[in-house]
Amino acid sequence: MKATVYVTIKENVLDPQGSAVQGALHSLGFAEVNNVRIGKYMELNLDTNDRAEAEERLKAMCEKLLANTVVEDFRFELEG
Amino acid sequence: MKATVYVTIKENVLDPQGSAVQGALHSLGFAEVNNVRIGKYMELNLDTNDRAEAEERLKAMCEKLLANTVVEDFRFELEG
Repeated sequence: MKATVYVTIKENVLDPQGSAVQGALHSLGFAEVNNVRIGKYMELNLDTNDRAEAEERLKAMCEKLLANTVVEDFRFELEG
Repeated sequence: MKATVYVTIKENVLDPQGSAVQGALHSLGFAEVNNVRIGKYMELNLDTNDRAEAEERLKAMCEKLLANTVVEDFRFELEG
Protein backbone atom coordinates (compact mmCIF):
# COMPACT_ATOMS: atom_id res chain seq x y z
CA MET A 1 0.00 0.00 0.00
CA LYS A 2 1.45 3.33 -1.04
CA ALA A 3 1.34 6.22 1.41
CA THR A 4 2.05 9.91 0.91
CA VAL A 5 2.73 12.06 3.95
CA TYR A 6 2.69 15.86 3.99
CA VAL A 7 4.28 17.67 6.91
CA THR A 8 3.74 21.42 7.10
CA ILE A 9 4.72 24.10 9.59
CA LYS A 10 1.73 25.29 11.62
CA GLU A 11 0.24 28.55 10.40
CA ASN A 12 1.21 30.66 13.38
CA VAL A 13 4.81 29.39 13.45
CA LEU A 14 7.56 31.32 11.64
CA ASP A 15 9.07 29.60 8.60
CA PRO A 16 12.60 30.99 8.11
CA GLN A 17 13.30 28.60 5.21
CA GLY A 18 10.18 29.87 3.45
CA SER A 19 11.24 33.49 4.05
CA ALA A 20 14.68 32.77 2.62
CA VAL A 21 13.22 31.14 -0.49
CA GLN A 22 10.81 34.05 -0.91
CA GLY A 23 13.73 36.51 -0.69
CA ALA A 24 15.67 34.50 -3.26
CA LEU A 25 12.67 34.42 -5.62
CA HIS A 26 12.29 38.20 -5.30
CA SER A 27 16.01 38.63 -6.07
CA LEU A 28 15.52 36.52 -9.19
CA GLY A 29 12.74 38.82 -10.37
CA PHE A 30 9.70 36.84 -9.20
CA ALA A 31 8.22 39.79 -7.30
CA GLU A 32 4.66 38.38 -7.47
CA VAL A 33 5.45 35.65 -4.94
CA ASN A 34 4.48 35.95 -1.30
CA ASN A 35 3.69 33.83 1.71
CA VAL A 36 6.08 30.99 0.89
CA ARG A 37 5.82 28.05 3.28
CA ILE A 38 8.02 24.99 3.02
CA GLY A 39 7.13 21.53 4.22
CA LYS A 40 8.10 17.94 3.69
CA TYR A 41 6.66 15.43 1.30
CA MET A 42 7.25 11.73 1.92
CA GLU A 43 6.38 8.66 -0.09
CA LEU A 44 6.54 5.25 1.52
CA ASN A 45 5.32 1.74 0.97
CA LEU A 46 3.60 -0.26 3.66
CA ASP A 47 3.56 -4.07 3.55
CA THR A 48 -0.07 -4.41 4.53
CA ASN A 49 -3.45 -4.61 2.84
CA ASP A 50 -5.47 -3.51 5.84
CA ARG A 51 -6.30 0.14 5.28
CA ALA A 52 -7.53 0.82 8.82
CA GLU A 53 -4.38 -0.67 10.30
CA ALA A 54 -2.21 1.25 7.84
CA GLU A 55 -3.89 4.53 8.83
CA GLU A 56 -3.35 3.86 12.50
CA ARG A 57 0.30 2.89 11.99
CA LEU A 58 0.95 5.90 9.77
CA LYS A 59 -0.54 8.22 12.38
CA ALA A 60 1.80 6.71 14.96
CA MET A 61 4.81 7.11 12.63
CA CYS A 62 3.97 10.77 12.08
CA GLU A 63 3.53 11.46 15.78
CA LYS A 64 6.67 9.59 16.81
CA LEU A 65 9.12 10.47 14.07
CA LEU A 66 7.99 12.11 10.86
CA ALA A 67 6.49 15.31 12.26
CA ASN A 68 7.22 17.47 15.27
CA THR A 69 3.63 18.00 16.32
CA VAL A 70 4.53 20.98 18.52
CA VAL A 71 5.24 23.13 15.47
CA GLU A 72 4.15 20.97 12.52
CA ASP A 73 0.92 19.56 11.16
CA PHE A 74 0.74 16.36 9.17
CA ARG A 75 -1.69 14.64 6.86
CA PHE A 76 -1.42 11.54 4.74
CA GLU A 77 -3.06 9.75 1.84
CA LEU A 78 -3.22 6.01 1.21
CA GLU A 79 -3.49 4.42 -2.20
CA GLY A 80 -4.11 0.88 -3.28
CA MET B 1 -3.54 32.50 -6.80
CA LYS B 2 -2.35 29.71 -4.53
CA ALA B 3 0.32 27.33 -5.80
CA THR B 4 1.58 24.06 -4.38
CA VAL B 5 4.93 22.74 -5.57
CA TYR B 6 6.19 19.19 -5.06
CA VAL B 7 9.88 18.46 -5.52
CA THR B 8 10.92 14.81 -5.46
CA ILE B 9 14.21 13.03 -5.99
CA LYS B 10 14.33 11.23 -9.35
CA GLU B 11 13.60 7.53 -9.15
CA ASN B 12 17.07 6.32 -10.07
CA VAL B 13 18.84 8.70 -7.66
CA LEU B 14 19.77 7.54 -4.16
CA ASP B 15 17.86 9.17 -1.29
CA PRO B 16 20.04 8.95 1.84
CA GLN B 17 17.54 10.97 3.89
CA GLY B 18 14.82 8.50 2.96
CA SER B 19 17.07 5.57 3.88
CA ALA B 20 17.82 7.15 7.27
CA VAL B 21 14.13 7.71 7.98
CA GLN B 22 13.36 4.15 6.93
CA GLY B 23 16.05 2.84 9.30
CA ALA B 24 14.64 4.96 12.13
CA LEU B 25 11.11 3.69 11.46
CA HIS B 26 12.36 0.10 11.53
CA SER B 27 14.13 0.79 14.85
CA LEU B 28 10.85 2.13 16.24
CA GLY B 29 9.09 -1.11 15.31
CA PHE B 30 7.52 -0.08 12.00
CA ALA B 31 8.98 -3.02 10.10
CA GLU B 32 6.32 -2.91 7.37
CA VAL B 33 7.74 0.28 5.87
CA ASN B 34 9.93 0.24 2.81
CA ASN B 35 10.97 2.42 -0.09
CA VAL B 36 10.87 5.73 1.80
CA ARG B 37 11.50 8.75 -0.41
CA ILE B 38 11.62 12.27 0.91
CA GLY B 39 10.84 15.38 -1.05
CA LYS B 40 9.82 18.98 -0.53
CA TYR B 41 6.40 20.48 -0.42
CA MET B 42 6.00 24.22 -0.94
CA GLU B 43 3.00 26.50 -0.75
CA LEU B 44 3.16 29.96 -2.19
CA ASN B 45 0.88 32.76 -3.27
CA LEU B 46 1.19 34.48 -6.61
CA ASP B 47 -0.14 38.00 -7.14
CA THR B 48 -1.71 37.27 -10.50
CA ASN B 49 -5.01 36.11 -11.90
CA ASP B 50 -3.64 34.86 -15.19
CA ARG B 51 -3.34 31.09 -14.89
CA ALA B 52 -1.26 30.60 -18.04
CA GLU B 53 1.21 33.26 -16.92
CA ALA B 54 1.33 31.79 -13.41
CA GLU B 55 2.13 28.35 -14.81
CA GLU B 56 4.91 29.69 -16.94
CA ARG B 57 6.39 31.72 -14.05
CA LEU B 58 6.15 28.78 -11.65
CA LYS B 59 7.93 26.53 -14.11
CA ALA B 60 10.73 29.10 -14.33
CA MET B 61 10.92 29.35 -10.51
CA CYS B 62 11.22 25.59 -10.20
CA GLU B 63 13.90 25.37 -12.87
CA LYS B 64 15.91 28.30 -11.52
CA LEU B 65 15.64 27.85 -7.77
CA LEU B 66 13.15 25.46 -6.24
CA ALA B 67 14.33 22.20 -7.79
CA ASN B 68 17.69 20.88 -8.90
CA THR B 69 16.51 19.37 -12.16
CA VAL B 70 19.63 17.22 -12.50
CA VAL B 71 18.53 14.99 -9.63
CA GLU B 72 15.00 16.19 -8.83
CA ASP B 73 11.61 16.24 -10.51
CA PHE B 74 8.99 18.86 -9.82
CA ARG B 75 5.29 19.31 -10.35
CA PHE B 76 2.87 21.97 -9.23
CA GLU B 77 -0.81 22.68 -8.79
CA LEU B 78 -2.59 26.00 -9.07
CA GLU B 79 -5.78 26.92 -7.25
CA GLY B 80 -8.10 29.86 -7.53
